[in-house]
Amino acid sequence: MILQSFYIYHMIEVYTDTYFMKKAYEEAQIAAEEGEIPVGAIIVCQNQIIAKAHNQTEVLLDVTAHAEVMAITSASSYLGSKFLEDCVMYVTLEPCVMCAGAIKWARVGRLVYAASDDKNGFMNYGKEVLHPDTKLEFGVMHDECSQIMKDFFKSKRGR
Amino acid sequence: MILQSFYIYHMIEVYTDTYFMKKAYEEAQIAAEEGEIPVGAIIVCQNQIIAKAHNQTEVLLDVTAHAEVMAITSASSYLGSKFLEDCVMYVTLEPCVMCAGAIKWARVGRLVYAASDDKNGFMNYGKEVLHPDTKLEFGVMHDECSQIMKDFFKSKRGR
Repeated sequence: MILQSFYIYHMIEVYTDTYFMKKAYEEAQIAAEEGEIPVGAIIVCQNQIIAKAHNQTEVLLDVTAHAEVMAITSASSYLGSKFLEDCVMYVTLEPCVMCAGAIKWARVGRLVYAASDDKNGFMNYGKEVLHPDTKLEFGVMHDECSQIMKDFFKSKRGR
Repeated sequence: MILQSFYIYHMIEVYTDTYFMKKAYEEAQIAAEEGEIPVGAIIVCQNQIIAKAHNQTEVLLDVTAHAEVMAITSASSYLGSKFLEDCVMYVTLEPCVMCAGAIKWARVGRLVYAASDDKNGFMNYGKEVLHPDTKLEFGVMHDECSQIMKDFFKSKRGR
């Protein structure tokens, strides 16, 4: 009985928002290593990561290659469904309007983002950009995900 | 001299917004034939069509596969540039917020759309969603591009 409780406790403890945001952060780190603006996104369905992506606008020469857009394409392909109602997206930066629009069309069940983006973030237009059924949370791992952006732009300026 | 004037007149006459919107409309017709919501987009650079696309969200099971997003990816690939400042995009329907965001990031020089979309169009949030340097025009072939949408949804309801 004690052992069972331990396992249940352990399961609940592992799959936290912070656990998944760390995975998105690892994607952002890959982007930084590739000289891309360090944004990472993952999509989770029933505690399973079904899509991982990082910003690839430079390598692909394509402004639409944001982490969120590619994660949605990937998750939809995996599930064989346009709609991602039962999924959670974790992204290291507040999505831009383009990505928020994609998240809306995909009807993502829950969106969790880390750092805010005062300049380009969709929240400049309000939560209404998202689908009304999409739950929203932000600030998880805010400091780390904000810092990786600052470090990136500082290193760019230093060149 | 008269002949020369004729050719100059003829050149100007051919490459009108209506000429190019017809090409976008042809793309919308292809979408309709494929059972997709009939939206078509083309991108023009120096009077040359460098990208054509139509909505493929159903066949690709991907909400990001709007005509405008795919046309931007295609045009950027053709030009080898993320930015499309010298390009004009013609699209048969007012872009949604996702697509307007993509058009912003690509810094498209000029956007011309035909039919308005009161429900999902980006103009609900204002022209500010676009890049400040993007010139905007709408209403070219409004009736035809609006009608193809109405016919599509009517045929869907009739099934």
